[in-house]
Amino acid sequence: MYELLKKIDGPDDVKKLSQDELKLLANEMREALFNRLTKIGGHFGPNFGMVEATIAMHYVFNSPKDKFVFDVSHQSYPHKMLTGRRNGYIDDEHFLEDSGYTNPDESEHDFFNVGHTSTSIALALGLAKARDLKHDNENVIAVIGDGSLSGGEAMEALNVAGDMDSNFIIVVNDNEMAIAENHGGMYENLKELRISNGKSSNNIFKAYGLDYIYEEDGNDISKMIEVFKKVKDCKHPIVVHIHTQKGKGYELAEKNKENWHWTMPFDRETGKPTFDFGNVKSYTEMTVDFIMDKAKKDKDFFVITPAMPGAIGLSREQRLELKDQYLDVGIAEEAAVAIASGAAKNGAKPLLVTNMTFIQRSYDQISQDLCINNNPVTMVMNYSSFDGLTDVTHLGIFGLSVFTNIPNLVVLAPTSAEEYLNMLEWSTNQRQHPVMILIPGNEVSHRSADVDFSDINKFKMEQKGEKTAIIALGDFYQRGEELAKEINAKFGYTPTLINPRFASGLDEEMLEELKKEHSLVITLEDGIIEGGFGQKIASYYGTSDMKVKNYGLKKEFYDRYNPEELLKELEMTTSQIIDSLR
Amino acid sequence: MYELLKKIDGPDDVKKLSQDELKLLANEMREALFNRLTKIGGHFGPNFGMVEATIAMHYVFNSPKDKFVFDVSHQSYPHKMLTGRRNGYIDDEHFLEDSGYTNPDESEHDFFNVGHTSTSIALALGLAKARDLKHDNENVIAVIGDGSLSGGEAMEALNVAGDMDSNFIIVVNDNEMAIAENHGGMYENLKELRISNGKSSNNIFKAYGLDYIYEEDGNDISKMIEVFKKVKDCKHPIVVHIHTQKGKGYELAEKNKENWHWTMPFDRETGKPTFDFGNVKSYTEMTVDFIMDKAKKDKDFFVITPAMPGAIGLSREQRLELKDQYLDVGIAEEAAVAIASGAAKNGAKPLLVTNMTFIQRSYDQISQDLCINNNPVTMVMNYSSFDGLTDVTHLGIFGLSVFTNIPNLVVLAPTSAEEYLNMLEWSTNQRQHPVMILIPGNEVSHRSADVDFSDINKFKMEQKGEKTAIIALGDFYQRGEELAKEINAKFGYTPTLINPRFASGLDEEMLEELKKEHSLVITLEDGIIEGGFGQKIASYYGTSDMKVKNYGLKKEFYDRYNPEELLKELEMTTSQIIDSLR
Repeated sequence: MYELLKKIDGPDDVKKLSQDELKLLANEMREALFNRLTKIGGHFGPNFGMVEATIAMHYVFNSPKDKFVFDVSHQSYPHKMLTGRRNGYIDDEHFLEDSGYTNPDESEHDFFNVGHTSTSIALALGLAKARDLKHDNENVIAVIGDGSLSGGEAMEALNVAGDMDSNFIIVVNDNEMAIAENHGGMYENLKELRISNGKSSNNIFKAYGLDYIYEEDGNDISKMIEVFKKVKDCKHPIVVHIHTQKGKGYELAEKNKENWHWTMPFDRETGKPTFDFGNVKSYTEMTVDFIMDKAKKDKDFFVITPAMPGAIGLSREQRLELKDQYLDVGIAEEAAVAIASGAAKNGAKPLLVTNMTFIQRSYDQISQDLCINNNPVTMVMNYSSFDGLTDVTHLGIFGLSVFTNIPNLVVLAPTSAEEYLNMLEWSTNQRQHPVMILIPGNEVSHRSADVDFSDINKFKMEQKGEKTAIIALGDFYQRGEELAKEINAKFGYTPTLINPRFASGLDEEMLEELKKEHSLVITLEDGIIEGGFGQKIASYYGTSDMKVKNYGLKKEFYDRYNPEELLKELEMTTSQIIDSLR
Repeated sequence: MYELLKKIDGPDDVKKLSQDELKLLANEMREALFNRLTKIGGHFGPNFGMVEATIAMHYVFNSPKDKFVFDVSHQSYPHKMLTGRRNGYIDDEHFLEDSGYTNPDESEHDFFNVGHTSTSIALALGLAKARDLKHDNENVIAVIGDGSLSGGEAMEALNVAGDMDSNFIIVVNDNEMAIAENHGGMYENLKELRISNGKSSNNIFKAYGLDYIYEEDGNDISKMIEVFKKVKDCKHPIVVHIHTQKGKGYELAEKNKENWHWTMPFDRETGKPTFDFGNVKSYTEMTVDFIMDKAKKDKDFFVITPAMPGAIGLSREQRLELKDQYLDVGIAEEAAVAIASGAAKNGAKPLLVTNMTFIQRSYDQISQDLCINNNPVTMVMNYSSFDGLTDVTHLGIFGLSVFTNIPNLVVLAPTSAEEYLNMLEWSTNQRQHPVMILIPGNEVSHRSADVDFSDINKFKMEQKGEKTAIIALGDFYQRGEELAKEINAKFGYTPTLINPRFASGLDEEMLEELKKEHSLVITLEDGIIEGGFGQKIASYYGTSDMKVKNYGLKKEFYDRYNPEELLKELEMTTSQIIDSLR
């Protein structure tokens, strides 16, 4: 087991192997991928597809002098195995040493910590620019999947690359998929290029001024070595368009590429997940039910997503059922927001769906294209919580600081299933406001909730008490409830408990009212404190006698943390807050 | 004078004119443009180039049923003249009724209030999507300049458009320029298309799956009418690539397109501005001097800009002199940040230059590509102030709320020429932090300043006093000084005056120290209060006895305001603050 792989301490050891041994190495690497992915999950399809190309890259180029930049870097596991990090795959005790993305802290063969799409060409262009200023001569190689090409940042960089006159190699790994199926006119062109074996005169890369070479057998090591040898030390920018099979080497994944883009721990024989999700209906399932029902009832309603139907688990069958009430624009967060704004302007009712970390890319479009124009778009953001995605590149904890400070945008933070669904219904029917709704990151709660949210910034006092008022936002409401109970139990009085519902503004009337019988306001929010919800309240009470204590995360790039541990570190568990109140 | 134009109350009146009259109308419209622009300034080249095409659009299509969406909309003056708003051009008393951009509040012929680039295709796609859902049948026409095509949002939308199968018309107004010269591989392709009269088989639009038609004489009304008639009611997406002359009809502007993209009020005979800038050396001039000097001394240093050398007034001659130490990536804020990050990672010292309002587009790249990776890039942002650009689409007042909440990013707010230059020097030499420097928006001040800022978040106490501490950030420091003097004069004690220098963190030691002899902290900042600098201080003192009063702008989309009047409205002039202290 892993006989060859165990001898690979770095790229030099790859270069020593014969062509036959390289093929055996590929098999061992797939076994190593199975070992890790069946046990702790991760990106499946992208890594299984890139085994051969990665071996060839390390065989031909001299990393780290020659520099590889992987897009999203969810396909970089094979690269990691070949650059001294095989133990993260073959030795269970070392799994957690390797992140799921490239990481300069792990290895000199990694140049960037990335996780968002469409960045590799631009980042690599920067490496090349510095190389040229220094009159160095290494190869710089950007690797990007076909799905990521539709992102604005990638195309901006293609255009800049077209102006270069020094070494720059862009490996386009075409597996005919984004996470889900690709969307957009360029994918017809990629298909033409594949069919014509790269000969089609209609060629998007050449249109950007780039040289171009095609290799159909992206999973054939010898052919990949040949093609990389051709372009090595090339003195101008060139695209190496390779055709690979996503999920290659696992029949289930080859057949259902979307489901096997990323996987939870699973059983290799059956492909089934190896743990039980339980029977609780999740917030995402509710969202899907809402969508399917709403679409039937209201023909002006449609779902729009930048390649993230999976953010709420909208299946391929459901998408087909929605027909023209579903629009996947491909990886293109900026265009998604602008299109939604335009559609709302012309009378449609768009519901935009993705993860909080990805919508960050459209800050400017949300501000300018949407909110200046005040069009009624509803944006539903999954993973808006500290508890969910904990990779530094996928944190949802910045959303409050980014989006609650945009004028006109109504940011809603529901505290229960009922409130979430009522907010969805209200928002998709109203015609006055752009709205962002944060899907709770905690377990599904049930409480009765209002149905009308048109009284913007009206907080809800759930429990009227005295001395201390707890304002607990969104999915931290249950923490507020718990704290209120503990205060009662420990200090013998009933504090006031408020569900603000609106994260983007203050209920000044209620805040004034609180001054009468309260001397302390505690705010709880699921995000960094800086720029978020609680600081607005601290500022509001700044010149009064009211004391304000803001609880939330620190402005920091946390990485792969244990959520409960983090709360302890931040001294914001209920018992710690009680202690500090003493 | 304006005989024909005075009869145009809307597009129907355009349709009544003969071809000869349409030509006379074009002449009158140019006169009207001169009338407005010589007197109050505005976008020159884009409007002079689009007169004929706009007449033809209104002649052929039926606005507002057929819907025009203009990119940036800095070329929409002719459209405004033909849609009931001629008085904004021919009658000086009505100039201020019209904004410099499209505006739905002005007319039903405008659909969006826009000012940033590269948005028109996506916004128009939204209109078309809603049309299709409603089974309506109007034409939707996006107009975009060649310069704006390089922006990611535009290319994302081209890709989405390629998937459509209903009416969608993209007019690419190719005048061979962005504000400055174009940059990027696609511009070679546009040139090929122009030279081949649209016949080149290498065609970026076709590569995106779009139908395509070329018209060389974009300034010939008859030909433009012909081409628009051809595409009207087309049932699939099509690009109408037209070649126009930027600044057509004014020799000076035809010869120097960059300088005449936008103009201050000027004398028509000489082209000279009609008011005196004075002799004070501006912050932008200092920046240019710094750059030219630094580039000579340090070969790792380079300037990178997303098509905005004009943000600091870097001339064509200076750009040429900088050679490979200058990189204009075209309109591509996202790629610009990522390229700068990559270059810094590989040892270069990039200085990124643009306006605050435009860098908003790269929030995600600054957070992910740059700050997670903590690469030493310096970003210099002009118009980071409430006093400067006052169009709602170009406000610099959101920068503090957007960028001070990103971990690792050091946001520096200088208070004088000396401090600004020292910060530039320090930042471009250090290798530890991504840094954003806000160019002051007030008159140039001179004060001695530190040269080392490596003690991150170390505030500077400029005057030690008692009772009240004024923390005055960046270009509001001088307001803080004035307030300190007035407090002394009116209340007979010396307040403490602090220049925080760092907008992105707190000097907790100093804040603790203040508790001893102060009961009130006043913060002053040049931006919205929400999410900005002062609220961090209010939160810090939340549970202490210190009172905190935050002064700044409200979270609001202000539009074309008088800066001094706005401060009065916000009750934050020095005398108003003094009154509130009584």
